[in-house]
Amino acid sequence: MSKSVFYHAGCPVCVSAEQDLVNLIGSEKVTIVNIGEDKSRIPEAEQYGVKSVPALVTPNGNVLHINFGASIEDVKV
Amino acid sequence: MSKSVFYHAGCPVCVSAEQDLVNLIGSEKVTIVNIGEDKSRIPEAEQYGVKSVPALVTPNGNVLHINFGASIEDVKV
Repeated sequence: MSKSVFYHAGCPVCVSAEQDLVNLIGSEKVTIVNIGEDKSRIPEAEQYGVKSVPALVTPNGNVLHINFGASIEDVKV
Repeated sequence: MSKSVFYHAGCPVCVSAEQDLVNLIGSEKVTIVNIGEDKSRIPEAEQYGVKSVPALVTPNGNVLHINFGASIEDVKV
């Protein structure tokens, strides 16, 4: 993939920090996916190796878990 | 400050992921500080609110702790 994917679950505390990161990278270079709202995207996130949100999956496939919002297991519930 | 500051301690496991993030933001927009090598920069990092490394301090002053490499307390030793 050529764009990064930013997975989050709407964590209100982290919104400012997350938005900062997206702005730094450039919002046109990041796809933002809210797996709290769109649970059908959770298996895809897991396949990339996302263990908690917020997380950024880079074009190289590296997963950066940022701070610790919520375990992906908790988002499933 | 106008640039982001990326604090790390040389964690070899995370180097690839960290480098990815710096590349995404653009290396010219990030100052990289290795507080493992340059311990005199630790108080500055703490003042920004850095609790563990790697961490990115954004120009807005938000601290993004990425994955969990090492506690800043462990880097002091």
